[in-house]
Amino acid sequence: MYTPNAFTFDDADAIESFIAENLFAELISNGPQGLLVNHIPLARVESGSLCGHLAAANPQAEIPDRTPVVAVFRGPHAYVSPNDFVSEFNVPTWNYASVHCYGTIRFITDSELAWQRLGELVVLQEGNEGWQLPDEPRFRSLLQAIRLFEITEPRFEGKAKFSQNKSSEDIESVIEALEVRGEQSTAAFMKKFSRSP
Amino acid sequence: MYTPNAFTFDDADAIESFIAENLFAELISNGPQGLLVNHIPLARVESGSLCGHLAAANPQAEIPDRTPVVAVFRGPHAYVSPNDFVSEFNVPTWNYASVHCYGTIRFITDSELAWQRLGELVVLQEGNEGWQLPDEPRFRSLLQAIRLFEITEPRFEGKAKFSQNKSSEDIESVIEALEVRGEQSTAAFMKKFSRSP
Repeated sequence: MYTPNAFTFDDADAIESFIAENLFAELISNGPQGLLVNHIPLARVESGSLCGHLAAANPQAEIPDRTPVVAVFRGPHAYVSPNDFVSEFNVPTWNYASVHCYGTIRFITDSELAWQRLGELVVLQEGNEGWQLPDEPRFRSLLQAIRLFEITEPRFEGKAKFSQNKSSEDIESVIEALEVRGEQSTAAFMKKFSRSP
Repeated sequence: MYTPNAFTFDDADAIESFIAENLFAELISNGPQGLLVNHIPLARVESGSLCGHLAAANPQAEIPDRTPVVAVFRGPHAYVSPNDFVSEFNVPTWNYASVHCYGTIRFITDSELAWQRLGELVVLQEGNEGWQLPDEPRFRSLLQAIRLFEITEPRFEGKAKFSQNKSSEDIESVIEALEVRGEQSTAAFMKKFSRSP
């Protein structure tokens, strides 16, 4: 991901929070069939890997172990018009944040480990008070229809492009314009990333 | 993109609307540097191609003409809990829509054509009443910092996964749960895709 210095997003804790809050990712790989892209939730599990699952019938579930993959996590984004700035010489742009995770895929073939990981993913999503994965044969048998995998030793690359290269007058003006257009999430990110500390 | 029959999204007009409403896409390619992914707006221009631009300094702007690419357009998405259904035997899932565009990239080397395409993209974003691209040297000189490209003969593949494989009682129950959680956009898609006509 092309990231000019002004838009660097590399704080490890902030990246962890970002992927946890935007866990519905895209899993991308390349192979003999060409580029494969699927939309799936991915989350850190106890092992430190990123974990997710694909339908067993999904061609991406057939890629060989250790295939390089990228997982793309996407945050809020919004169009920014030249009219949103106070200064005069601007062009249309887009403000957004994204984290890319580079690594290789390892499918989990041990069914007990797969079941354990599935349980971890459910708790991450539901919390301790929500729905729990029942340890019953009809649920366990669903494991046959999916393939769990991990992205081991994930390397993260973040970008937060929120007009940080503009004057504080321009930044405040863009925040206000985004709020007027109902783009509260992007405006909130701008307040965090673009305002001087 | 793995798409079971229940989730087919292939109406040409609906796909056109979808990409126009969700034009902030991901451009994905593979090459000697590995997988490249960048976040950019892409839109249909007069030629029928999908058009966008990359910073000239972006490594993806160096990929050879006719390299296969995928552009991913993403719509609303939301987590669906087993607790959201009326029926009893369900698992956590995610409802979402996405359109993938497969094609090959062609960079626009003619600067007059590039300027024209840039003007088209501005109008698509701003409308006729909004900001207009001034035909001035200081704006024209910005062309040197970007590379415009088209994805010619784009082939689209859509998926709309909104619990269409569930009973109408379950569908209404999920719509209600999403609305309670503030997931109005995903609920609106469910009303369109999942309710019987």
